[in-house]
Amino acid sequence: MIIILKRDADPKKVENLANTLQQQGIIIQDIKGEATHMMGLAGDTSHISREQIEANDFVESVMKVSEPYKLAGRKFHPEDTVVEVAGRKIGGGNFAVIAGPCSVESEEQILSVARDVAASGAAFMRGGAFKPRSSPYAFQGMGLDGLELLKIARQKTGLPIVTEILDPAYLEAFAADVDVIQIGARNMQNFALLREVGALKKPVLLKRALSGTIEELLMAAEYLMAAGAKDVILCERGIRTYETATRNTLDLSAVPVLHKKSHLPVVVDPSHSTGYWDLVEPMAIAATAAGADGLIIEVHNAPQCALCDGAQSITPEKFHHLMGRINKVRAAIAED
Amino acid sequence: MIIILKRDADPKKVENLANTLQQQGIIIQDIKGEATHMMGLAGDTSHISREQIEANDFVESVMKVSEPYKLAGRKFHPEDTVVEVAGRKIGGGNFAVIAGPCSVESEEQILSVARDVAASGAAFMRGGAFKPRSSPYAFQGMGLDGLELLKIARQKTGLPIVTEILDPAYLEAFAADVDVIQIGARNMQNFALLREVGALKKPVLLKRALSGTIEELLMAAEYLMAAGAKDVILCERGIRTYETATRNTLDLSAVPVLHKKSHLPVVVDPSHSTGYWDLVEPMAIAATAAGADGLIIEVHNAPQCALCDGAQSITPEKFHHLMGRINKVRAAIAED
Amino acid sequence: MIIILKRDADPKKVENLANTLQQQGIIIQDIKGEATHMMGLAGDTSHISREQIEANDFVESVMKVSEPYKLAGRKFHPEDTVVEVAGRKIGGGNFAVIAGPCSVESEEQILSVARDVAASGAAFMRGGAFKPRSSPYAFQGMGLDGLELLKIARQKTGLPIVTEILDPAYLEAFAADVDVIQIGARNMQNFALLREVGALKKPVLLKRALSGTIEELLMAAEYLMAAGAKDVILCERGIRTYETATRNTLDLSAVPVLHKKSHLPVVVDPSHSTGYWDLVEPMAIAATAAGADGLIIEVHNAPQCALCDGAQSITPEKFHHLMGRINKVRAAIAED
Amino acid sequence: MIIILKRDADPKKVENLANTLQQQGIIIQDIKGEATHMMGLAGDTSHISREQIEANDFVESVMKVSEPYKLAGRKFHPEDTVVEVAGRKIGGGNFAVIAGPCSVESEEQILSVARDVAASGAAFMRGGAFKPRSSPYAFQGMGLDGLELLKIARQKTGLPIVTEILDPAYLEAFAADVDVIQIGARNMQNFALLREVGALKKPVLLKRALSGTIEELLMAAEYLMAAGAKDVILCERGIRTYETATRNTLDLSAVPVLHKKSHLPVVVDPSHSTGYWDLVEPMAIAATAAGADGLIIEVHNAPQCALCDGAQSITPEKFHHLMGRINKVRAAIAED
Repeated sequence: MIIILKRDADPKKVENLANTLQQQGIIIQDIKGEATHMMGLAGDTSHISREQIEANDFVESVMKVSEPYKLAGRKFHPEDTVVEVAGRKIGGGNFAVIAGPCSVESEEQILSVARDVAASGAAFMRGGAFKPRSSPYAFQGMGLDGLELLKIARQKTGLPIVTEILDPAYLEAFAADVDVIQIGARNMQNFALLREVGALKKPVLLKRALSGTIEELLMAAEYLMAAGAKDVILCERGIRTYETATRNTLDLSAVPVLHKKSHLPVVVDPSHSTGYWDLVEPMAIAATAAGADGLIIEVHNAPQCALCDGAQSITPEKFHHLMGRINKVRAAIAED
Repeated sequence: MIIILKRDADPKKVENLANTLQQQGIIIQDIKGEATHMMGLAGDTSHISREQIEANDFVESVMKVSEPYKLAGRKFHPEDTVVEVAGRKIGGGNFAVIAGPCSVESEEQILSVARDVAASGAAFMRGGAFKPRSSPYAFQGMGLDGLELLKIARQKTGLPIVTEILDPAYLEAFAADVDVIQIGARNMQNFALLREVGALKKPVLLKRALSGTIEELLMAAEYLMAAGAKDVILCERGIRTYETATRNTLDLSAVPVLHKKSHLPVVVDPSHSTGYWDLVEPMAIAATAAGADGLIIEVHNAPQCALCDGAQSITPEKFHHLMGRINKVRAAIAED
Repeated sequence: MIIILKRDADPKKVENLANTLQQQGIIIQDIKGEATHMMGLAGDTSHISREQIEANDFVESVMKVSEPYKLAGRKFHPEDTVVEVAGRKIGGGNFAVIAGPCSVESEEQILSVARDVAASGAAFMRGGAFKPRSSPYAFQGMGLDGLELLKIARQKTGLPIVTEILDPAYLEAFAADVDVIQIGARNMQNFALLREVGALKKPVLLKRALSGTIEELLMAAEYLMAAGAKDVILCERGIRTYETATRNTLDLSAVPVLHKKSHLPVVVDPSHSTGYWDLVEPMAIAATAAGADGLIIEVHNAPQCALCDGAQSITPEKFHHLMGRINKVRAAIAED
Repeated sequence: MIIILKRDADPKKVENLANTLQQQGIIIQDIKGEATHMMGLAGDTSHISREQIEANDFVESVMKVSEPYKLAGRKFHPEDTVVEVAGRKIGGGNFAVIAGPCSVESEEQILSVARDVAASGAAFMRGGAFKPRSSPYAFQGMGLDGLELLKIARQKTGLPIVTEILDPAYLEAFAADVDVIQIGARNMQNFALLREVGALKKPVLLKRALSGTIEELLMAAEYLMAAGAKDVILCERGIRTYETATRNTLDLSAVPVLHKKSHLPVVVDPSHSTGYWDLVEPMAIAATAAGADGLIIEVHNAPQCALCDGAQSITPEKFHHLMGRINKVRAAIAED
């Protein structure tokens, strides 16, 4: 941590602050130039509040240097985390595709799509039973009935279930039936939910918030891990920017940046990020080339009849073709 | 709703879509130029899914025209909503200031600050008992003990309590003890929480999300109102942009825009939006001049010792001075 | 400047870098904790390239501490700059309104508007002769003919001319005829133009770029001042964000932030920032309350016939009413 | 174009507007529902000013439907444009890499880097002679001397020159000596420069502005083409967002979106977009996989001594390795 002092800072007040910090075991280095006066803090500064120090009127600003995350960071956990569910692995060189409809709509629909994506090489099945919709009047998902249909599809295809939790009221059902619990973008900083889901110690797919920074995404993972979760899969799903040609702006640089800062696997969602089915294929391939550990893709047997997000869903035929291209790119980048 | 068709759209497919829509009671107008072909939809289009229509390969894009909110919108509710709590009013020409510390820290602290802000003219007291912190290791608030201290301060000062709910587990306590329940920026799209808080039918202070649009803020209010709430106070608290000189970018234009689109009162938070105590005064005055129905301001008796957000808290003395300036600006804009 | 070293940085390489910097007169302080290793640099670091240091593989990142601007900054120029043109002052407690149409369209139009705004108390007249239009097919302004019409209006009303330069080819005409040369948002980082306009040593109105940071705005002012300009007026005109309810997001916090960092006067443009005429009045008043040194407002006698930007222009009648309200708010905030 | 009318719009005023538009040859369709009243406009609406119509007080808003670009758009030019310079092609299935240092610094440096990148398969050489620097005190490039050194390097390696123009004062030199004239991000809306460069009818590399929309990028291309240019290469180089982990946010979805909307070739700059050398390789590969027609990459023989942008430059060795990986990915996606 670096404290930048105002030009006319009262030396007595500065000394008082320095003494207070030193009593907390912090080592302080004075750095004084003609135009600037700083204090460099070393030691365990994780309990020092930046805001408290900035509230002193002789302080110009405070800069953090250490990363605020520990369990999610690569610094103290250099080797890649590999998440394994029913024999399917993500991370540490293992690549997996999660595919399925935005919402579960009927047994026929989810079974048909699950069979198709399994046949094309998907390792997990996705499908929303509880849907976060910006309108209270829009279809909110089938709820627990949808969860039952996902279980039937899992039984018939062997694909583990990835589905989103919205309400802690359903924690028990998710603990019992869901293989990978998804925390959606809108709940990335729902800290109460993070703590409760983390305590289940099940695999979690954590989506980046609409305007979440990479650091905030890792701090949300830290919440899950501090509560007990070990297998957290990070998901880049597009961020909100001024550009309106796509639904969100897919931030693919986040893939190598997250790999540098964290040991957790990173998957990319080319469907929600772009919002248009014809952009899903190029972005899925680009994400693979960028080094993602997996993809989560919306597939629907009749997108124009989908109860939500039809515009960004691809058909099983397109998904099959896409899987072929992904495998070729995987092979090309593996050679090095 | 306007459907823009692709240049080479198959006329048969277009007719099929038109027929399907007409069977749902929609009136369709064909608009055909040399380079563009559109269909204009009139009637109740609120149940038509934009995504479903965009999933058709002959559709270029779909534009919404009607506002998706009804209860929160001014269209069908032209007169201003006035929220009244214990004789204090916000909205419809009534102005109120909510003030207090970021967190409740002790009986002495909350009592002292509450007495000071009441004496300076604050109408409501704020103070966090449950704090949404980006780090799981940071101070998370005093919890229910904090709520008890707020009740003591209310008893001694008469100021109604405005405080944030994070977890539906505490709904009962909030229903019993809190006068205005705050939904924080990070939970603006926590739809499960919105529904449950809305069902309490108590006044709610709803903060705009970090990158929430004005439409999304009104849709979040719609969730609360569809669940039963009537007295929703909207709060502009700064949005996330590329600028780092302030914590967030205070979007004061949102005040007149919200007044145009909605009948609900609008308050502004100059503390969280700017992040620096010396910007609180100019932005509080500017918000008042922009026509806000109220302000929510962080006041702490010793900001440099505050357990959170000290950098943006002002002292009771500065608050007192600020209230004087606010009143002068209120008088100046009232003359018209 | 602070250099944050990688955890496993080779001590020899670190020493080499330190030696190189010390030979350039920099004083170095080593700051070493358990998890972090930094070097604090004091002395004149303005010629040290952050990028060069970051290119070393043992460096994690580099943080700047000093402000990169000198002439535009308040640090070495604590007193407010007052810009004076033909007896009209902006800055240091002096407030001035610049008003007029987006484009000069005819002698009748510019004369009529200039007379009206002068009568209502405007101190300067604005009016585009050269217009930056996003389409090459849109009206590009009357060019030098427009400049002639502005001169006529100046002669008849006494209002000095504020108008935008787009092309260095017209430098001579602007030097001879224009009182305050405007650099538009799209040219804020057109460094060739900044240098040439700065060398004229005339007053300049410098608009913040569409996504310009406050630091970049001050660096653009620094370009003008390094080339010879003294009288630079900074202009906040809204920044680009994800919000689409307004044309841009007016960043009023920039007013007190710029006043803190710089001695230059700051004016606000409520017309371009909001894009809608009915938002001009509340935002003009809010900007005044926030402490702006002036306003620049689009006024047109027949907005629905304006050749550009009609949607954001107000009529002379509305401008007159607005000036009355601005004066009242000015009086209210002056009392303190 | 769609005009959305206010609920209480005066029918006479609406009729007047409709008549005015019809006299200009526009066909108007009335679309009237319970809650909305719109007019759909067909015919050539390119000369209708959206702002003028929005300035009418009975109009709620106006939506554009047609794209505002014609020469740059795919609608009237369905086949891909292939830019060819000295036998090297970009676009329409042809892929080319442009590589070289940020700035030309000496004959030895530019020759050494040019030879290295040519040997690794680069098709063009880049190198700044005129540098847009945010500080007036930073190295501004070698100017015309730098251009001379680029010519020497071209003569010895055969690589055509891609370099940026900042000032119309040097148009003649660029016309004579430069193969592909670069318009930098900061000048994307410097319309005077666009017109003058376009009139040279030489190939142009046009970079997207820091917060340029895809539509604005295409309108800037339209300026160049309306002035005479045919061979415009679009360049995605990262956009400004709230995320600070990278210098900019690389928007790779722009590649397929631009290919859909325009016939012009699209190259990607993984150096400026990310700002860190270790992100250049994954993003270069991802851009290739996303379907880019080429890449522009900073290569420096001693990045830690580079006079600018060292942090984002890669060494010739790393470039060589990268070219191998790019070729493998090219082969993988070509199979389809």
